[in-house]
Amino acid sequence: MAPQLQGYFNKVDEMAEGFIKRLSDAVAIPSVSADDAMRPQVVKMAQFLRGELEALGATVEERHPGAEPDRPHLQIPPILLARYGNDKSKRTILVYGHYDVQPALKEDGWATDPFVLSVDQKSGKMFGRGSTDDKGPVLGWLNAIEAHQKAGIEFPVNLLMCFEGMEEYGSEGLDDIIHDEAKKFFKDADAVCISDNYWLGAEKPCLTYGLRGVSYYQICVHGPGQDLHSGVYGGSVSEPMTDLVKLLGTLVDNKGKILVPGLNELVKPVDEEEKKLYEGISFEMKDLYDGIGSCSSIYQDKESTLMARWRFPSLSIHGIEGAFSAPGAKTVIPAKVIGKFSVRTVPNMEPHEVDKVVLTHLEYEWEKIRTNNTMEAKLLHAGKWWVSSPKHWNFAAASKAVESVFGCKPDMTREGGSIPVTLTFEQATGKNVLLLPMGSSTDAAHSINEKLDRRNYIEGIKLLGAYLHYVAEEPQVEQ
Amino acid sequence: MAPQLQGYFNKVDEMAEGFIKRLSDAVAIPSVSADDAMRPQVVKMAQFLRGELEALGATVEERHPGAEPDRPHLQIPPILLARYGNDKSKRTILVYGHYDVQPALKEDGWATDPFVLSVDQKSGKMFGRGSTDDKGPVLGWLNAIEAHQKAGIEFPVNLLMCFEGMEEYGSEGLDDIIHDEAKKFFKDADAVCISDNYWLGAEKPCLTYGLRGVSYYQICVHGPGQDLHSGVYGGSVSEPMTDLVKLLGTLVDNKGKILVPGLNELVKPVDEEEKKLYEGISFEMKDLYDGIGSCSSIYQDKESTLMARWRFPSLSIHGIEGAFSAPGAKTVIPAKVIGKFSVRTVPNMEPHEVDKVVLTHLEYEWEKIRTNNTMEAKLLHAGKWWVSSPKHWNFAAASKAVESVFGCKPDMTREGGSIPVTLTFEQATGKNVLLLPMGSSTDAAHSINEKLDRRNYIEGIKLLGAYLHYVAEEPQVEQ
Repeated sequence: MAPQLQGYFNKVDEMAEGFIKRLSDAVAIPSVSADDAMRPQVVKMAQFLRGELEALGATVEERHPGAEPDRPHLQIPPILLARYGNDKSKRTILVYGHYDVQPALKEDGWATDPFVLSVDQKSGKMFGRGSTDDKGPVLGWLNAIEAHQKAGIEFPVNLLMCFEGMEEYGSEGLDDIIHDEAKKFFKDADAVCISDNYWLGAEKPCLTYGLRGVSYYQICVHGPGQDLHSGVYGGSVSEPMTDLVKLLGTLVDNKGKILVPGLNELVKPVDEEEKKLYEGISFEMKDLYDGIGSCSSIYQDKESTLMARWRFPSLSIHGIEGAFSAPGAKTVIPAKVIGKFSVRTVPNMEPHEVDKVVLTHLEYEWEKIRTNNTMEAKLLHAGKWWVSSPKHWNFAAASKAVESVFGCKPDMTREGGSIPVTLTFEQATGKNVLLLPMGSSTDAAHSINEKLDRRNYIEGIKLLGAYLHYVAEEPQVEQ
Repeated sequence: MAPQLQGYFNKVDEMAEGFIKRLSDAVAIPSVSADDAMRPQVVKMAQFLRGELEALGATVEERHPGAEPDRPHLQIPPILLARYGNDKSKRTILVYGHYDVQPALKEDGWATDPFVLSVDQKSGKMFGRGSTDDKGPVLGWLNAIEAHQKAGIEFPVNLLMCFEGMEEYGSEGLDDIIHDEAKKFFKDADAVCISDNYWLGAEKPCLTYGLRGVSYYQICVHGPGQDLHSGVYGGSVSEPMTDLVKLLGTLVDNKGKILVPGLNELVKPVDEEEKKLYEGISFEMKDLYDGIGSCSSIYQDKESTLMARWRFPSLSIHGIEGAFSAPGAKTVIPAKVIGKFSVRTVPNMEPHEVDKVVLTHLEYEWEKIRTNNTMEAKLLHAGKWWVSSPKHWNFAAASKAVESVFGCKPDMTREGGSIPVTLTFEQATGKNVLLLPMGSSTDAAHSINEKLDRRNYIEGIKLLGAYLHYVAEEPQVEQ
């Protein structure tokens, strides 16, 4: 039986100004995790959130992972673990969000004070650092609880919450806590929901079921003992830059095709059913052109473009360390140059298999170069891809919630980048993980003038609540 | 009739300590032309030099080219034009040097205060910024005059001197002055001598008759409107780095062979006589290995190595502007990247012909790449090669002077780098230019612990004086 949601929706509309006030209070705390001096503000934000949760009747615990490895003078801010409801007859949903934000200074080019939520009444845009990333979504869960209480509607699930304050600085300490708590604080979780990404466009909601991984490599080529003058030595010495450029040139062609033998063979073949998923997605080439600021796309059609971003691996050359990189002209032969590139990975590319084919290829091509310089290639870091089943009841519930709030079926999307915590939750809990975004692609997360649209916030609160109602009723079996 | 030089040589030995004191006084003035704050010291150094010259009976004029184009708040220090002797029956020799120095700070790693001449009595090394580059050689001319006076020996030529204070910062303003004065202050010059380079090794003097030129290019490839996240967009967009790396890979092979069609055809063929010039030169591969700090040379024999450095063109890739060049890992797709490379040029490569084949090659290879990005290649700056006739009487005189002081014939060398003023003097005056170095390859000019050996300084003063005696007597005809 479909849940009766109108009473809840009406209450959310009624309470909208209060919810915006709550977001405004949160944005006013500059919880910038990257900034040493702002650390007390990050802790203050944790206290604010804890206070709001407890006022709503949630129980809250804190986890303190200790000092940061990179900045040992700083303590990692508390990871808040909260529970609302403890009814064995109900499903338990674990949600994740973060209360820290990216740095922001008015002088970076913000039109308004980044730490004052500035609501443009006409457009409904609510500007402020953290509005969409990720304070709006985090408060969305709290607002959903409060609206249920005020409307006198029973909360449909037990809600476990995990809110961290280090997401914008590598989520230090989080992975260990998630694994530690999997069989403790998180043990009742039936499914996981993360609201920390964005719609594909500005109009249509989406559910995200996949993320690419990344394997990041460097190639170090060196020869001379120190940088040399190209006039004095040019022509008589094997130049590391010449060798590195040749080696980097063997990795990928100008249409984005990866040239490393064996790499494309690791990729899971696309079947017909999967292909169809891309046809219906609300996306136009213009959206890509807007995103990249030009028309220099490799493909001219939607399906190929989206699959290239989400479904297939890619290889990007990021730059060279140790060579001349400043404006102007310097006649140097760099003695030691380090090329950086990364491979975005997808099913079924196991990171260690990717390493093997990439490093074997580099050694093979290096042998062909026959230079007197030496080369050392290595993996700098790897994060695995994540793909969930969009047919799982967790997704089915979210899809129905989107229909009930927005009147349309959501796009089923992947993303090209990584959100490492997604895979951590899946691996630690063994449960299905859903990415359920609140904000839109136009929100400028991480940029100046970050905003969240009033519509996305208020309808988003409805969506999160509706999702909990549907997820409470969804049959266990995958459909 | 060979000149009688023993009296002069004896006087130089007798006055050695006074000459070292003069160098010590000059090194004590930190005339760093690159440092705004040191400009008064550069001017003070000009005044010191003018005072010394006038005390020796030379007439001195100053030229003031005005404000620096790049640093308009700074006035270019005076170019000193001096004359010693005005006897129409004598030859007139124009000499050039510079009284400014490279920056130097004790904390850069100097073992001694860089602006205190520190003489190691045992090794004879005289440490100090500017000792070898170029205060020692400049004062060498003054010392030669003084020793003649004290010895009561008639000075064999009229000496014109041109000393600038901006050599270490691009010789701003000098070219115009040289051209302006070619038919005025410099009009009597019969030949030019520049003492501002170094012996090929540490033991044997050389005369330098050639320098390579340089044509410096950049290739700008751009596509996206701004830097992109490689996770979000990788695979869907034509990446400028991929294209640039391919293009840079078409320029030169890993054995230093230039791959630009038509470029090697511009090079003057080597004849048998020229080949022989390289066989006798006092140089070992160990000297190269010491210079580059490794054994990563392209050739294993002396002749090929020296010809690669002096006689043939070379192409070096210097670096890339706009890509990720810092340590660590950044997942960026750079939107606009600028590759820098340069070609060292030799006879008969006319700069405009070099431009033509290089730019044509880049356009041709770019067409083959077939990307959606755009490419723009251009010359940043060009300086022409210079090769003089080592058989000219100017060189013959210098060669005899070396024999009389050092008891051996000098190596006839070229250099791979450029000393642009050489070509300017040749073109402006129409006279033969000789490079007659005083210091050795071990002097660490431009580095920490710059030094001039006592032997090079004192025997160098004898050499400069002996050269003037021989040049006064040398028959006009080329031999």
